[in-house]
Amino acid sequence: MSDALLQHPFMSQAALNECNAQAMVAGMLAFELALAEVQEARGLLPEGVAAQMRQALEGHAFDISSIGAGVASGGNAAIPFVKQARAALPAELRRHFHLGATSQDVIDSVLMLMLKPRLAALDALLRRCRSAAVELMQAHETTVMVGRTLMQQALPLTFGVKVAHWGIGLEQARRRLATLELPVQFGGAVAVHSGLDGPGLDGQGLDGTDPSGLGLELMDALAQRLELSVPVLPWHTDRQPIHALATALDAVAGAAEKLALDVALLTQTEVGEVSEPGGEGMGESSSMPHKRNPVRCALIRGAARQVHGHVSVILNAQAQPLERGLGEWHAEWTPLLDSALLVEGALEQACVLLEGLEVHPEAMRRNLAVTGGGIMAEPVLRLLAPTLGQDAAKRISAEAAETARLQGVAYAEALQAHPELQGQVEAQALRQATDPALYLGSSQAQVRRAAAWLQRE
Amino acid sequence: MSDALLQHPFMSQAALNECNAQAMVAGMLAFELALAEVQEARGLLPEGVAAQMRQALEGHAFDISSIGAGVASGGNAAIPFVKQARAALPAELRRHFHLGATSQDVIDSVLMLMLKPRLAALDALLRRCRSAAVELMQAHETTVMVGRTLMQQALPLTFGVKVAHWGIGLEQARRRLATLELPVQFGGAVAVHSGLDGPGLDGQGLDGTDPSGLGLELMDALAQRLELSVPVLPWHTDRQPIHALATALDAVAGAAEKLALDVALLTQTEVGEVSEPGGEGMGESSSMPHKRNPVRCALIRGAARQVHGHVSVILNAQAQPLERGLGEWHAEWTPLLDSALLVEGALEQACVLLEGLEVHPEAMRRNLAVTGGGIMAEPVLRLLAPTLGQDAAKRISAEAAETARLQGVAYAEALQAHPELQGQVEAQALRQATDPALYLGSSQAQVRRAAAWLQRE
Amino acid sequence: MSDALLQHPFMSQAALNECNAQAMVAGMLAFELALAEVQEARGLLPEGVAAQMRQALEGHAFDISSIGAGVASGGNAAIPFVKQARAALPAELRRHFHLGATSQDVIDSVLMLMLKPRLAALDALLRRCRSAAVELMQAHETTVMVGRTLMQQALPLTFGVKVAHWGIGLEQARRRLATLELPVQFGGAVAVHSGLDGPGLDGQGLDGTDPSGLGLELMDALAQRLELSVPVLPWHTDRQPIHALATALDAVAGAAEKLALDVALLTQTEVGEVSEPGGEGMGESSSMPHKRNPVRCALIRGAARQVHGHVSVILNAQAQPLERGLGEWHAEWTPLLDSALLVEGALEQACVLLEGLEVHPEAMRRNLAVTGGGIMAEPVLRLLAPTLGQDAAKRISAEAAETARLQGVAYAEALQAHPELQGQVEAQALRQATDPALYLGSSQAQVRRAAAWLQRE
Amino acid sequence: MSDALLQHPFMSQAALNECNAQAMVAGMLAFELALAEVQEARGLLPEGVAAQMRQALEGHAFDISSIGAGVASGGNAAIPFVKQARAALPAELRRHFHLGATSQDVIDSVLMLMLKPRLAALDALLRRCRSAAVELMQAHETTVMVGRTLMQQALPLTFGVKVAHWGIGLEQARRRLATLELPVQFGGAVAVHSGLDGPGLDGQGLDGTDPSGLGLELMDALAQRLELSVPVLPWHTDRQPIHALATALDAVAGAAEKLALDVALLTQTEVGEVSEPGGEGMGESSSMPHKRNPVRCALIRGAARQVHGHVSVILNAQAQPLERGLGEWHAEWTPLLDSALLVEGALEQACVLLEGLEVHPEAMRRNLAVTGGGIMAEPVLRLLAPTLGQDAAKRISAEAAETARLQGVAYAEALQAHPELQGQVEAQALRQATDPALYLGSSQAQVRRAAAWLQRE
Repeated sequence: MSDALLQHPFMSQAALNECNAQAMVAGMLAFELALAEVQEARGLLPEGVAAQMRQALEGHAFDISSIGAGVASGGNAAIPFVKQARAALPAELRRHFHLGATSQDVIDSVLMLMLKPRLAALDALLRRCRSAAVELMQAHETTVMVGRTLMQQALPLTFGVKVAHWGIGLEQARRRLATLELPVQFGGAVAVHSGLDGPGLDGQGLDGTDPSGLGLELMDALAQRLELSVPVLPWHTDRQPIHALATALDAVAGAAEKLALDVALLTQTEVGEVSEPGGEGMGESSSMPHKRNPVRCALIRGAARQVHGHVSVILNAQAQPLERGLGEWHAEWTPLLDSALLVEGALEQACVLLEGLEVHPEAMRRNLAVTGGGIMAEPVLRLLAPTLGQDAAKRISAEAAETARLQGVAYAEALQAHPELQGQVEAQALRQATDPALYLGSSQAQVRRAAAWLQRE
Repeated sequence: MSDALLQHPFMSQAALNECNAQAMVAGMLAFELALAEVQEARGLLPEGVAAQMRQALEGHAFDISSIGAGVASGGNAAIPFVKQARAALPAELRRHFHLGATSQDVIDSVLMLMLKPRLAALDALLRRCRSAAVELMQAHETTVMVGRTLMQQALPLTFGVKVAHWGIGLEQARRRLATLELPVQFGGAVAVHSGLDGPGLDGQGLDGTDPSGLGLELMDALAQRLELSVPVLPWHTDRQPIHALATALDAVAGAAEKLALDVALLTQTEVGEVSEPGGEGMGESSSMPHKRNPVRCALIRGAARQVHGHVSVILNAQAQPLERGLGEWHAEWTPLLDSALLVEGALEQACVLLEGLEVHPEAMRRNLAVTGGGIMAEPVLRLLAPTLGQDAAKRISAEAAETARLQGVAYAEALQAHPELQGQVEAQALRQATDPALYLGSSQAQVRRAAAWLQRE
Repeated sequence: MSDALLQHPFMSQAALNECNAQAMVAGMLAFELALAEVQEARGLLPEGVAAQMRQALEGHAFDISSIGAGVASGGNAAIPFVKQARAALPAELRRHFHLGATSQDVIDSVLMLMLKPRLAALDALLRRCRSAAVELMQAHETTVMVGRTLMQQALPLTFGVKVAHWGIGLEQARRRLATLELPVQFGGAVAVHSGLDGPGLDGQGLDGTDPSGLGLELMDALAQRLELSVPVLPWHTDRQPIHALATALDAVAGAAEKLALDVALLTQTEVGEVSEPGGEGMGESSSMPHKRNPVRCALIRGAARQVHGHVSVILNAQAQPLERGLGEWHAEWTPLLDSALLVEGALEQACVLLEGLEVHPEAMRRNLAVTGGGIMAEPVLRLLAPTLGQDAAKRISAEAAETARLQGVAYAEALQAHPELQGQVEAQALRQATDPALYLGSSQAQVRRAAAWLQRE
Repeated sequence: MSDALLQHPFMSQAALNECNAQAMVAGMLAFELALAEVQEARGLLPEGVAAQMRQALEGHAFDISSIGAGVASGGNAAIPFVKQARAALPAELRRHFHLGATSQDVIDSVLMLMLKPRLAALDALLRRCRSAAVELMQAHETTVMVGRTLMQQALPLTFGVKVAHWGIGLEQARRRLATLELPVQFGGAVAVHSGLDGPGLDGQGLDGTDPSGLGLELMDALAQRLELSVPVLPWHTDRQPIHALATALDAVAGAAEKLALDVALLTQTEVGEVSEPGGEGMGESSSMPHKRNPVRCALIRGAARQVHGHVSVILNAQAQPLERGLGEWHAEWTPLLDSALLVEGALEQACVLLEGLEVHPEAMRRNLAVTGGGIMAEPVLRLLAPTLGQDAAKRISAEAAETARLQGVAYAEALQAHPELQGQVEAQALRQATDPALYLGSSQAQVRRAAAWLQRE
């Protein structure tokens, strides 16, 4: 990307520090050294070679900008890296380096190595979100507010249940993330471990086992050593693992985006039911001192939208030709890694939102009243219908709501005053039917069920 | 969609027959009747009401075009359907119908009901693909062909291993699909089962249990009756289940698309290693009698691309405001359902491809020879390097490949004739090193491992 | 698409009636007859052949479902159509039919023919939007309301200027649409008019001109006869015209979507500054009598999101291999045509919105007051700063806003009562600085400029 | 973006050097100074203020990393930049700085300033492509090759006509790019130039003209000074200009991607009709000495796919709420700028491809023969049909093609030897009908027409 000033705000700074060119070079080196180690352990390299490589290369100062320049001609970072690493080795070790591997083995495996701590970070952030959500939903188990459909006031619910829905969305996404595999890649030029199956391999003989199985054995051992998962087979052009990763990241983005959209809507000046947590300089407007902008929501929404675009690249790049992509593979790298960084940035903001959200129950109560009780027309209708019939009940409940709104009186009062209700319904019943706090349906049960589910590992 | 003539070829005809306006009306009716039944079972409706409803409505001829027209004003099909159904009921049953439900409960649940047989059909098609792949890969466990990276010939492998990779991609997608939940939707207007928690509900009293839990109880019972899964809570604006569905469908599309891309590349006139199975009129060209077009591949690829676009709609519609989407929800319907139909269409073609693919081993052998052995330069290099040093080995192996190509002789011969190799290497070793059939790496082991994994349920 | 009940509400009914299988068959016939006519005119067919074809086919009842079935095997609708048409011709005319044409010539040209009335309809709808916008913006040239950034109240503007911005967005999209070309497609099998260049062509000799030019001549004449535009060359795999069309349609969708988003936000119960125009059954809620849902906004937003997904298919299908796409072309059909139908549906709603929007200036005034004048802190700051210095001015303007909000007094009063302002600023100046109606910047000039620009053809 | 090693190969290095954080700061400064200048010229600032600002700030070393850090809290780079710039100014100038502007004015205008040289670079690259295409198509006006549909050999054409189609695609995209506007952004907090319309503005009086027009006057003057175009009105939430830019960039990406796809297909080992231009280390394989990978094609295709994803973000971010986006705007920045850099990178490769493509006419001739003449069955059919009837002609032309392929004889010979053709057709006519070089349709005329069109400005 060209410019830190545009992109950084959306990405996790912590992640950016761990996920850069240095980290990429370190990952490529880790792959190659682990490969030599498993090959040596299997008797394919002379004893001691892997340790000598490690000694020669671990402290070596790779020239990152020269690797960068080399990328353009070879098409990926592994090619110039391998050249530079070979040049840094004693001559006799060179032919043992990168043995049986292809560039895609290196790059795919390194992407997995770089994603591993990111997925761990996302999991930790999502657990923070979950804890904060549980606390917030329980604190507001009985905080009454209005529910809104198509952004119109509809019927009451509790703020707790709204938080429960946020929490469940985020936790579903976390559990999906937790099922992901980060498989090692190792297959050689055409994904069949060419040359690792028989005589002539690096001058070494093999023991009596089926030589055809050796490549897969090495692949498995390499996965174990790098702490990646073992794929069934090399997956150079079977991109299911990448698709699963990218779409699971997108699900997290979507869950955070839902939270941000709701918070943004509830912080609107006219609604004012919640406020973003304050913070030094956070959300201030250079020209308008009275404003506190929902900047965290904007950053989450900005990040999530970019993730959706990145993931659409991955969707469209699944079908890769024959034994190696011709641009399809290359197109995956940045969208995949940037998606992780954007999601991490979004979740950092989501944590702060959930942990520090300022909730304004009095504004919620105020908003419950703005329709003059109109939102309680449904329960009133239910109350009146058995006595007056559906049609009359519907008309009367609406007329009283209009009266309440116009005259600024309580809905129950307007109903009591309605000529057709005289002597028909008890005042107490009317007061109950028009009290939002008595019309919360399953709000409380939902919070309880959600808390149990969220806390069940 | 406007025009059957454009879209139908990509979709499964069988699925279209089961997945139309009639099916949608039937699904809405099934939802409402099941709702009445669970409500009656829970004592919320007078005994017998549900059965009376069923009797009145099950044979009723709904006016589908009038429902269609009503959609535009209400914004979804449930609104005109409920009106029409209520009108068809005896007056005394009307207020028991659709009780406590909202349009989104109906529509979301019906989508799940409509998707259920589609997922079953996809699973069956993917199992057919799997069986066909296992058979094909085992039949070609030793069929040698050239592997191609960036569409350039690289090194040999077997056709069996290529099929194994296809099979694993498809089966990964199948297993992902098999984990999906199809949850019922039931939450009422603002997702908290308003009015289902207390006195006044339909004139019925409740037993002594926590009234707040009743809505969730009904939701769970409804799921059971409709044979859908039970969500933690209503999910009106928590679209994780939709995202999981859509992206899993996309993964299937991608796996089929990979197969189609490879088959299309291998059927190219100049490559000719496989042919699409014939079929009456399939792939014929109106003007060019000699052509057999890979029409099935084109249909798969055309379908998959449309799925990717549909799924990008779902990615971008995850965040839905407060208690009901304002267009985001509406935007999901067609992309979700059409994705399923497109994927089913693509898999029908994929089955035929895998079951009937014509494989041409002789063309594979011919193509192995077109570089004059150049693709075997790597093993030759490995053979020569220990004796001659890396640089000389590289030069000689390349020079001989060029000679072989220009003079049309075998690579082994050209190597034997190379002046610098006189007396250096045995002819037998050269013949071995230049024989693609002896340089297959883990091809066989991969087929065996893949077969075991594919057949493990 | 599978189900009218899901998709229809988003699409224009008028368009669906004109844009179906019948229309497609009529278009294919129009193409073939026009082709015969220009070929006859150029001496390539015996005199009278084209008229005989027209006579034989114009009244012919094509079997549309059989064409539909044939699509799957051939991959497109032209193949079964041509077969059916040939079979319906007298034997001696058959070889003159579809002469020199390929399926893609037919399909691409028919898509253009079907889009032509759609673009005209879109233009007409956008002109209706424009007229309505001009009227609405002028009616509200001085209607004061609050402007909102990041959905927070910021500073005043007029409702007129907001409408002007909507109008300019829509009109920019209209002008972009008006520049589009709908080119004929005619190139034959490999886009070079094979066989139309010399002796042997249908037994006809040619006059002395360069025979190589004949194909292009026919293409140009065909364009003229079909009233399509003339491309430079056949464009079978140069999809720039499709990309231009699809992205221009998306721009219209985006402009309508912006309008719908704003209207939806302004209709929120707590904001209430505008209402969607009423309409029989439009936006009613089955369970909540007090609600009027912004259903038109939901339909527009639902349609626009689907268009974005369709267009992403077109973006990804631009690169088509060699002389004919292998799925890429097929993938374009439905996304392109459905985009047009969805945009037309969205614009029908947008017209109604702009023509019938209910505007509530009193709610706008009420909302201007909810911050207790806080939104006028900026002008007060500007007034005080020269006298008191930037820092003191900032502090005092904020303190008074807080007082106003808490005590429910006017901001000007709170300022006048502020101890530090005693004798510093005139009451009249304070009243002016706190009056939103005096702080409208360029609102009026913008409406005037917009009206002039919109009405300039 | 996190990592230069992943993304850089796809982007133009020249562009990256001009399009970074420094450039962004320089752009923001240019905007602010130009604003002060036009304000001073209009009498809104005391004489000399703008020059003093310029003197104070032009040499100032902005702390870019501190601006970067500030982005996260404010949500965009303008907020910390303005703070830093104000702090660097003498106290008396501070209140004149950024007067009447909002962050979005700065950021949007700077994006336009940064895109301006990029569009110029793209235009220059596309002109280079055009020149190279004209030269290449004319050099190969008569080079015969086979045309391929659905990747199957179909009928002959010339390589020149194929290049013409590439050239026309690229040039259409260039002409579309050339129509784009890069409008200045200037509207203040809510896009109506609040506070720029009357008394109290910065202590300055105004001349007698309509004060409401002043903001637009300044906007127009600012556009002129920054050499950007003049929008009708501020366009903070009217994103038509961004959509037009992004989709036009995508069209360029698509045209380059088509070229890359074709070149990649034609360079396949078995086809071998063209080769990518060589270049030091370009396309080499670390393990396979015989390979030359089409790396430039892979880079173009990788870049184009990422552009499609970025543009899908822009499509989905068009509708921005009220007077300022809440994440939608923020989501545009990177996708827009990165699209430009990716397209520039792709075009640099496209230029090299078109300027240095190695064309192998002998391979084209060889491939014309691989069907044993089968591709000429159509012209033979046309020759035979008038004499033998359509059905016999079809059968005989196919039988002879099969004989030719199996016996390795020329198609004309096989036809001559066919028993049913004895004495029916002259050998000369058969030779003509089976000679691909005599069946090129409009190939030559197309090259001529394309050259004329491409060279017409």
